[in-house]
Amino acid sequence: MKIAKLLYDTSERNSDLLYLGKFVAPDAFLAMEVGGKRIAVLSRLEYGRAKRESAFDEILSYETLKDDARARFSKDDGLVGIVRLLKERYAVTRFLISEDCPVGFFRKIETLGVEVGPLFPERQHKSEAEQNAIAKSNDIAKKGFRLVQKILKESKTRGNKLYYKGKILRSEFLRQAIEVEALQNGFSAQHTIASSGEQSADPHCVGTGPVYADALLVVDIFPRNLKTGYFGDMTRTFLPKSPSTQQLKMYKAVEEAQILAIGKLKNGVDAANIHKAIEAFFEKAGFHTTQTEGFIHSTGHGVGLDIHEHPRISKTSPDKLQAGHVITIEPGLYYQSVGGVRIEDVFAITQHGFVKLS
Amino acid sequence: MKIAKLLYDTSERNSDLLYLGKFVAPDAFLAMEVGGKRIAVLSRLEYGRAKRESAFDEILSYETLKDDARARFSKDDGLVGIVRLLKERYAVTRFLISEDCPVGFFRKIETLGVEVGPLFPERQHKSEAEQNAIAKSNDIAKKGFRLVQKILKESKTRGNKLYYKGKILRSEFLRQAIEVEALQNGFSAQHTIASSGEQSADPHCVGTGPVYADALLVVDIFPRNLKTGYFGDMTRTFLPKSPSTQQLKMYKAVEEAQILAIGKLKNGVDAANIHKAIEAFFEKAGFHTTQTEGFIHSTGHGVGLDIHEHPRISKTSPDKLQAGHVITIEPGLYYQSVGGVRIEDVFAITQHGFVKLS
Repeated sequence: MKIAKLLYDTSERNSDLLYLGKFVAPDAFLAMEVGGKRIAVLSRLEYGRAKRESAFDEILSYETLKDDARARFSKDDGLVGIVRLLKERYAVTRFLISEDCPVGFFRKIETLGVEVGPLFPERQHKSEAEQNAIAKSNDIAKKGFRLVQKILKESKTRGNKLYYKGKILRSEFLRQAIEVEALQNGFSAQHTIASSGEQSADPHCVGTGPVYADALLVVDIFPRNLKTGYFGDMTRTFLPKSPSTQQLKMYKAVEEAQILAIGKLKNGVDAANIHKAIEAFFEKAGFHTTQTEGFIHSTGHGVGLDIHEHPRISKTSPDKLQAGHVITIEPGLYYQSVGGVRIEDVFAITQHGFVKLS
Repeated sequence: MKIAKLLYDTSERNSDLLYLGKFVAPDAFLAMEVGGKRIAVLSRLEYGRAKRESAFDEILSYETLKDDARARFSKDDGLVGIVRLLKERYAVTRFLISEDCPVGFFRKIETLGVEVGPLFPERQHKSEAEQNAIAKSNDIAKKGFRLVQKILKESKTRGNKLYYKGKILRSEFLRQAIEVEALQNGFSAQHTIASSGEQSADPHCVGTGPVYADALLVVDIFPRNLKTGYFGDMTRTFLPKSPSTQQLKMYKAVEEAQILAIGKLKNGVDAANIHKAIEAFFEKAGFHTTQTEGFIHSTGHGVGLDIHEHPRISKTSPDKLQAGHVITIEPGLYYQSVGGVRIEDVFAITQHGFVKLS
């Protein structure tokens, strides 16, 4: 029984493929892992670059394989012919493809013997190098927060608005400034959130329009290293110069909730229990949760080559935290009348505790 | 027979989903088109924003549907339950999913009656608004070329290298300058190519290291509007200050090839014939093509919400160009000893000819 993991996608979109070959390519290509060997099939447009840059052990020419397959099977059926040829050459019994493999490709190769399942569950466990890469991405997030802090400090208040260099300070300006700075450091910070006041009560609202002088400002930055693909993920909430009692109370509750959650991080702990402890804490502190307000998202998630990956720290999570897991801890509270508060950091679980990667 | 088009993906990754709902969301969600009605199922995190921003006719609450499905079918099977419920409520006979739908999702809903096929072939035909959006993205590419021109003009030559503001001018610097400028205009210009000399002979090499004073410089910019998702796609090749006879000859051949191809653009023409004409032209001009050198890519491709989409202008393309198609024309020549030349513009086919969108 020789099982080959088979992938067909772009490595921009498919993190398993990026994990396998450490090669960023904009067009879909075929790759396989069999008997510990990593093999890629690349067209002449990518062949040379992959030889130089990728971690594949063997790089096969798409054009040559296509000709070989046509000769071997006396017909031209493109990718399918190549997969048939690979099956023969590497004596593969069955292929394993991932749940996110395109159904069109699956149906073309189905008759060759295909199972569907997770390809690299070991991706959850990050090596020291991977943990360092994530920490470096968080350094870029921190640069973003310092930039926001500087802009807020240099802004002047007129009425309920902030003015930066004579212009109304807008979420769009903050987001762009953060994203440009990230790009200048070799990182992509797409979908950065900088949401003020009412908008911050909607955790996914990226923010548009004025940053209000008397409102909470939620800034969530998740920079991705353009070379390695590893994400960072941090959130800070900026209080207005003269915060209201309510804003302060909410901020402190979230801060305490995060400390409470961090205190529970260790090898073997039930992720769901961490989430439930935060829920209970907020309820006890008087911050009730409804369908639309309160603590309306999970406590955290794995982060790596995908911004959201296993394990999950939520009410229904079946996961236990294990050494090598890298997760966010990001409690938050959201009320239309006050706005949102979220504080997010990243931690690696170790045998005997955790390390902060943010 | 009531067929519902069904999608489950992120609209960042899935252009069909973006096309349907004109709503950019970072997490996967369920959407359906049935009887001309566009329906999305969104969690409380996206519900409000979708109501305000999207083009969906109906937005259903994921949480409510999940409860309804559990009550109706007396079990909690997540997404599948919701799809079953939708099938019942909208009297759907069969679902149509796309070839790129994740196989995991397909296998969960397979028993409900599912066909696999193209969802929106009409995406190939661009409306005036879509053509304008593409032209605007090309305006950003043009800004990039002007920036490169300015930097080259202000650079000084020492030996075979260029120096800009006292530092060796590098591909990385050019690419970043272009990408930052695009971002400042609300566009993403990921994977911009600025490759000099030998590297430019590899059409997909994004470029690293020095820009050489005596070499060809290929700059390929494909900016995507961060709001609408429409791409532009243009390439310019910059000649050195004192080009060699060979460089000049190659540049002129590519220029002429592009003019030749553009002259063939009209409603009803066979795409493959355009490609073959360019191949013949290059051969006749003495530029031979092997497996790795010469005219080693296709003449062009459709561009829209995906950077590469139908129709294709290649040797084996079955497509006929039709009014409303928006395509690139990008002949190129690549030789290790000389470098690469590519010139790329974008055109919309009309009833009686074409319009240039770049």
